[in-house]
Amino acid sequence: MRSQSSPLLLDLYQLTMAHAYFELGMNDTAVFETFVRRLPRSRGFLVAAGLEQALDYLEGLQFSGADLELLHGLGTFPNSFLDHLSKVRFTGRVDAMPEGTPFFADEPIVRVTAPLLEAQLIESRLLNILHFQTLIASKAVRCALVAGGRRLVDFGMRRAHEADAGLHAARAAYLAGFHATATVEAGLRFGIPLSGTMAHSFIEAHDSEKEAFRHFARIRPAGTTLLIDTYDSERAAQRVVELAHELKGDGKTIDAVRIDSGDLAVQAIAVRRILDAGGCQNIRIIFSGGLDESQIEGFVQTGVPVDAFGVGTSLDVSMDAPALDMAYKLEEYAGRPRRKRSPGKLTWPGAKQVFRTRGTRGETLEDRIALHDEQLPGVPLLAPVLSNGQRTGSPPKLRDIREYCLREVQALPPGLRKLEHDSGGVSVQVSNEVRALAAQADRAIQ
Amino acid sequence: MRSQSSPLLLDLYQLTMAHAYFELGMNDTAVFETFVRRLPRSRGFLVAAGLEQALDYLEGLQFSGADLELLHGLGTFPNSFLDHLSKVRFTGRVDAMPEGTPFFADEPIVRVTAPLLEAQLIESRLLNILHFQTLIASKAVRCALVAGGRRLVDFGMRRAHEADAGLHAARAAYLAGFHATATVEAGLRFGIPLSGTMAHSFIEAHDSEKEAFRHFARIRPAGTTLLIDTYDSERAAQRVVELAHELKGDGKTIDAVRIDSGDLAVQAIAVRRILDAGGCQNIRIIFSGGLDESQIEGFVQTGVPVDAFGVGTSLDVSMDAPALDMAYKLEEYAGRPRRKRSPGKLTWPGAKQVFRTRGTRGETLEDRIALHDEQLPGVPLLAPVLSNGQRTGSPPKLRDIREYCLREVQALPPGLRKLEHDSGGVSVQVSNEVRALAAQADRAIQ
Repeated sequence: MRSQSSPLLLDLYQLTMAHAYFELGMNDTAVFETFVRRLPRSRGFLVAAGLEQALDYLEGLQFSGADLELLHGLGTFPNSFLDHLSKVRFTGRVDAMPEGTPFFADEPIVRVTAPLLEAQLIESRLLNILHFQTLIASKAVRCALVAGGRRLVDFGMRRAHEADAGLHAARAAYLAGFHATATVEAGLRFGIPLSGTMAHSFIEAHDSEKEAFRHFARIRPAGTTLLIDTYDSERAAQRVVELAHELKGDGKTIDAVRIDSGDLAVQAIAVRRILDAGGCQNIRIIFSGGLDESQIEGFVQTGVPVDAFGVGTSLDVSMDAPALDMAYKLEEYAGRPRRKRSPGKLTWPGAKQVFRTRGTRGETLEDRIALHDEQLPGVPLLAPVLSNGQRTGSPPKLRDIREYCLREVQALPPGLRKLEHDSGGVSVQVSNEVRALAAQADRAIQ
Repeated sequence: MRSQSSPLLLDLYQLTMAHAYFELGMNDTAVFETFVRRLPRSRGFLVAAGLEQALDYLEGLQFSGADLELLHGLGTFPNSFLDHLSKVRFTGRVDAMPEGTPFFADEPIVRVTAPLLEAQLIESRLLNILHFQTLIASKAVRCALVAGGRRLVDFGMRRAHEADAGLHAARAAYLAGFHATATVEAGLRFGIPLSGTMAHSFIEAHDSEKEAFRHFARIRPAGTTLLIDTYDSERAAQRVVELAHELKGDGKTIDAVRIDSGDLAVQAIAVRRILDAGGCQNIRIIFSGGLDESQIEGFVQTGVPVDAFGVGTSLDVSMDAPALDMAYKLEEYAGRPRRKRSPGKLTWPGAKQVFRTRGTRGETLEDRIALHDEQLPGVPLLAPVLSNGQRTGSPPKLRDIREYCLREVQALPPGLRKLEHDSGGVSVQVSNEVRALAAQADRAIQ
């Protein structure tokens, strides 16, 4: 599936630089790498995501006649450059960590090797794609780590930052351990299980709550969910019990009740008691309403009778850390290492690889950031995914990415898998060859 | 311009409820309202935005054959309902505050009056659109309030939450007082002035900084901007002075230098001195690099020699408050008031209007949340914008929205226009008629 976004979704400076490179004939091979400079304080690791959408973008990159017409209208680009732009495609190579890989600060997750102009043109949109899903996967995994196997559903589309954020938040959450999404298009497009109940408005549009429950359960397929906190969740739970008995023999069933406001734990205990006393031990309890991973952990640790969580806003905007310090930096041009020395933004030059060392039980011990052609112990995390502008293989299945992610996250040290993570965990080292190259790059600067 | 988003970008429960409404023949008129329950702690007011994109969505709502095919595949909706869905358009009416209006908690900004099924179907996507631009406009206005007239440019697309967010963040920022954006597509689509310089990679791809500056200034049109912090901003400023003299008579000029890292204030003072001593008093200084409104206020208040700010991540994700507690709630169905009574989520029933009272100099004094047919002093803020599913007039120009917004913001009490706002300012009252209707709605609940 190709990205629908326009090639004009870039920063103006990418075009002004491309124009200059064109005029100067500077079209040697450049190596750019994407990495996160510093992790948000509350994150012990991040989860790489968004690569498939990034590759869609790269494979589809092309300026249409209409795009060039618009650029012409800006009046600052000569026709010779716009003609050149009409022929530009992404012809380079991409090496990347598989989606779902846990990673740390300074580690390249995507390396782009391409003619300078192409590699520069894609900067902002590539970051825009990789940043968002990585952000959300890194938030979602925290919910998965504390939910104790309970079902997690993405409810956040309405407060995600517009359409494609809503869509891709569902994808990123699923690959990092969520079980389903409420967002229909995400379910259909990515094969994510869909989950949905009813809103308070359904109850309110009826003159009685019981009638609303009955209508919904009779019309919808067996296994429905009823929302019980519009007025009084305990009274509603009684009605659910009565309705469950009424439905017997009709082929209709109530699978769950959802509580969305107030003191969820207190209500759940009372509701569980009412359901059980009424012979409805099979009806599950779902929580929603502004939940985050800390609250989920609290409910699970204190044994609150809850079976599933709908997580919305805090997931879809990564509420406590809504952005990552992710960058896309030039590491090499025309065979020579390049390096930014701006205060606080020093980068490691050269085309790099990350070698991950594992213990005897597969547990992650150490990462080493090295030059791409070094031979070091451990598994190299970046592998070729695009060559001559085309994918090197078919995209992995989202379900396989999800399984890989869960496995890799379980291989992290226990201290990193806690919400309040330890500072230690996996040691990340920079190889001597990278350090030597940095010194060489610094000497070359005039 | 029609929204390109799919009608399937909705929550599953909107379809399950629509199915039930269809089977039950519940298709009386419903009134839903969009409002923000509580403002983020750091916001004294919000700025309404996103209405034009919301109306695009409503005017264009339609399920294609392919959409219905996909829904059919879910196996839980009968053909009779899917047939009905194929004929659904939004045929209702919308009343709204104009974009750019400052507003407060509990005030409806958009009121939808439509057959229940239609009004319910649009819930999540309507919120998704209105929430985001309102969020960003409400953040951007804070920068505008403290920048002392200095130029503000949106640099945030790369860390915005995907494509639509990058695009619409530029729009929302502009209407709330920004002057330009770096995002090319936003500039072209919405007529926002574009601004762009060069990246560090441009300098690094050259073997010397001076050569990079010279190349860029000679190739690009007069009035270029050079990025001076790749290695050492003071040495770079010297090079800019030399180059400015070298360019004299060539029709090329340097308009500005940009500093993106390190201690911006210290560097700016030194750079300003170097530029002035070299006869380059006209060259402006631009700051960027993780700026937010507090830093901008600090630079302006301490008299740092800076002429413009590029604001990125903190703007495009509204870093300190990345989501608003915005809701879309049923207020009336079949002519009767409806109300949610869930703990902490009580709503005011009925179709409502907001009357804003102004003082003799146009300053905002008080808002009164009233029923839509009450006659109260002040200006009614909501006006019809869509009737029978079609716009009632042509969309306002973005520049006019911007002027209206700046005027309305200036009319707010001074205490609300500070970053650390006063609690008082504008008093927001709920009319007695609304309170009486709430009591009536409560009595009706069984």
